[in-house]
Amino acid sequence: MKKIYLDNAATTPTKPKVLKAMMPYFSRDFGNASSIHSFGRKAKKAVEKSRMIIAKYLNCDASEIIFTSGGTESNNLAIKGLITNYELRTTKFKNKPHIITSAFEHHSVLNVCKDLEEKGLAEVTYVKPDSKGIISVKSVREAIKENTVLISIMYVNNEIGTVQPIQVLSKEIELENKKRMKYNKNLKSEILNLKSEIVFHTDAVQAIEYQNCNVKKLGVDMLSLSAHKFGGPKGVGALYVKKGVKLHHQNIGGAQENHLRAGTYNTPGIVGMGKAIQLLNTKSEIRNTKVKTLRDYFINRILKEIPDTFLNGDKIKRNPNNVNISFKYIEGEAILLHLDAAGIAASSGSACTSGSLEPSHVLLSIGLKHEDAHGSIRFTLGGMTTKKEIDYTIEVLKKTVKKLRSMSPYGKD
Amino acid sequence: MKKIYLDNAATTPTKPKVLKAMMPYFSRDFGNASSIHSFGRKAKKAVEKSRMIIAKYLNCDASEIIFTSGGTESNNLAIKGLITNYELRTTKFKNKPHIITSAFEHHSVLNVCKDLEEKGLAEVTYVKPDSKGIISVKSVREAIKENTVLISIMYVNNEIGTVQPIQVLSKEIELENKKRMKYNKNLKSEILNLKSEIVFHTDAVQAIEYQNCNVKKLGVDMLSLSAHKFGGPKGVGALYVKKGVKLHHQNIGGAQENHLRAGTYNTPGIVGMGKAIQLLNTKSEIRNTKVKTLRDYFINRILKEIPDTFLNGDKIKRNPNNVNISFKYIEGEAILLHLDAAGIAASSGSACTSGSLEPSHVLLSIGLKHEDAHGSIRFTLGGMTTKKEIDYTIEVLKKTVKKLRSMSPYGKD
Repeated sequence: MKKIYLDNAATTPTKPKVLKAMMPYFSRDFGNASSIHSFGRKAKKAVEKSRMIIAKYLNCDASEIIFTSGGTESNNLAIKGLITNYELRTTKFKNKPHIITSAFEHHSVLNVCKDLEEKGLAEVTYVKPDSKGIISVKSVREAIKENTVLISIMYVNNEIGTVQPIQVLSKEIELENKKRMKYNKNLKSEILNLKSEIVFHTDAVQAIEYQNCNVKKLGVDMLSLSAHKFGGPKGVGALYVKKGVKLHHQNIGGAQENHLRAGTYNTPGIVGMGKAIQLLNTKSEIRNTKVKTLRDYFINRILKEIPDTFLNGDKIKRNPNNVNISFKYIEGEAILLHLDAAGIAASSGSACTSGSLEPSHVLLSIGLKHEDAHGSIRFTLGGMTTKKEIDYTIEVLKKTVKKLRSMSPYGKD
Repeated sequence: MKKIYLDNAATTPTKPKVLKAMMPYFSRDFGNASSIHSFGRKAKKAVEKSRMIIAKYLNCDASEIIFTSGGTESNNLAIKGLITNYELRTTKFKNKPHIITSAFEHHSVLNVCKDLEEKGLAEVTYVKPDSKGIISVKSVREAIKENTVLISIMYVNNEIGTVQPIQVLSKEIELENKKRMKYNKNLKSEILNLKSEIVFHTDAVQAIEYQNCNVKKLGVDMLSLSAHKFGGPKGVGALYVKKGVKLHHQNIGGAQENHLRAGTYNTPGIVGMGKAIQLLNTKSEIRNTKVKTLRDYFINRILKEIPDTFLNGDKIKRNPNNVNISFKYIEGEAILLHLDAAGIAASSGSACTSGSLEPSHVLLSIGLKHEDAHGSIRFTLGGMTTKKEIDYTIEVLKKTVKKLRSMSPYGKD
């Protein structure tokens, strides 16, 4: 049976060209990039080349890229790194730091924030998205307090694919920062009343393949990436940290990454991430349009041909690859099992939380009822997805939903 | 020019069989191991198989293995994980937790301890090794205080290769823990005077290839590993955590690794680590004897044929692959550059700190003078190292040392 993979937001296959680029660095040019001999220098050169490729793509300086083990570590370093640094210099500020984030972030942001709250190291406001899955600029603005030091809003939601207004948010934050700097300037000796500049972080793990990630244009101070979400290998990620933003290291040890992230360089992984970024540049407009067309075809046919279904998240402001549908009166898990038996891979939420019986926090945050959240499926297309695959998936879906509903104790009445 | 690699403690080439085992998991069986569909299940199966191989090798339960991004993260999770957990439940204990470690640990242990001290989260005693590079059981016993909760002593030192008496240390700690449990049992209502059991952690990153790492025999509660130090890939490691030892997660996010270590499973890396462990089992006695014979041949010839040299670290209680020599009156970096020009890769200390102008903290801790520490070179052999390579290296060394000494402003007089 030919398999159909519609779970590209969970992970993607490593592209053949990426794997080819990585291969020399496993067994031939295997040196430790921190060693000064020729083996080490070759590895170091490869690491720095990859850093430059990524920096160029994000329109930043190579020194602003920190390599990590993935998106989760990037988010941990961004948030805990900033707050720990703030904590270590709190004598200058009178209040506990305040973080603004959204209620539907990935768990590597949400759970880090909750951890900081539990430890008493930060207070956190979780801004709710609207029913379309968009964070309004107004809601973020209203959440800003005197002691707000960090705003972390994801670029693209990982479950419903909605695209957040990062650029508009950054303008708003810039205005607030200007006010604060003016205030600080006018302060005389009251060092304890200094206001901190707000740092703006975005988790762009789901955005990098389809959205513009030019950090200068976006106006963000930190941006998280994970290689395996866009054709790179698993186990490697990066964090863009704008010059001047001070973080306290989290993975502590050797002097790597300017003392910000210790541990032997994962040279093959880093090289693979660079190559995957390079490949994004190729025919990106054509790919985006192709995927978006297929997405809309898929959405429209489901909504038209399967009764009692609705789309989660805004229809326009969404990633070209994301289709998230609620099928009323039935369980998502049951649909998934039937799809899997027919060779189709989809997901009922993020892979990180699969196995959990809780309904998706993302779907609840946009106002879904528990039972509708439980009946939702995420399909995420890839550059290789074909119309034939979508047609087949729709046929299987129609049969499956009909069958499950006929057995379901719940129903319209 | 044929290259000679004598820096196996910095990193090793990924073994061909390891790479072969990893290959299917990049682009074919690439699923996210947390996904419930067939792609995910295949990846999950591979991850769990690898976990079982490693657990069997360490003689522990598969559920006691936590996969990380490498040795540095394993050490961070062990130490910070334990102290943060302790911190979060301090109401039960009256004192700030106390850690005992050694003065010549890897920086991923030392700098974590320093970080905890700076944050006021722990107090730390850094036990000094003797002049042979061995931590005495007596010095650890004497450092134990009422509030000691963690002892972290490396199994094999990464610079001088000395093997620490882990098994004897664990017996000593067991005795102390028995006393504490008896004391706790006799306590009535004074919950605040409860004594915590001491947890014993060892960084076995340099030990796994040549020393017995049976955790039950060793008597350790936590043990850190890094795959790329023994023929596995970079970017993956593991931490053994004995059932019952409670850690607070450090890389926070999804529910992976029983909520202890979030982030998408690096399936190819994890599979590679399992394969590398499996290969250690093959002909290990023969390999160890071969490497040890070559090591002693190397050491003896240097000490005999090059004047004013001495071996750092005990001659007997040392890893079969480690040769660390001080060449008096000259700079180690200069020797390294000459060796490199002749195609030989060696090191002046750990790769993680290369580029630093500070003399090695390991060599200073065993009592070397600054100038002798600066004149030291670490050669670490591998299973593939040949006598011919060693002979060539000795010839180059002899010429290099003679040349450098003839130019050196320092000398015997």
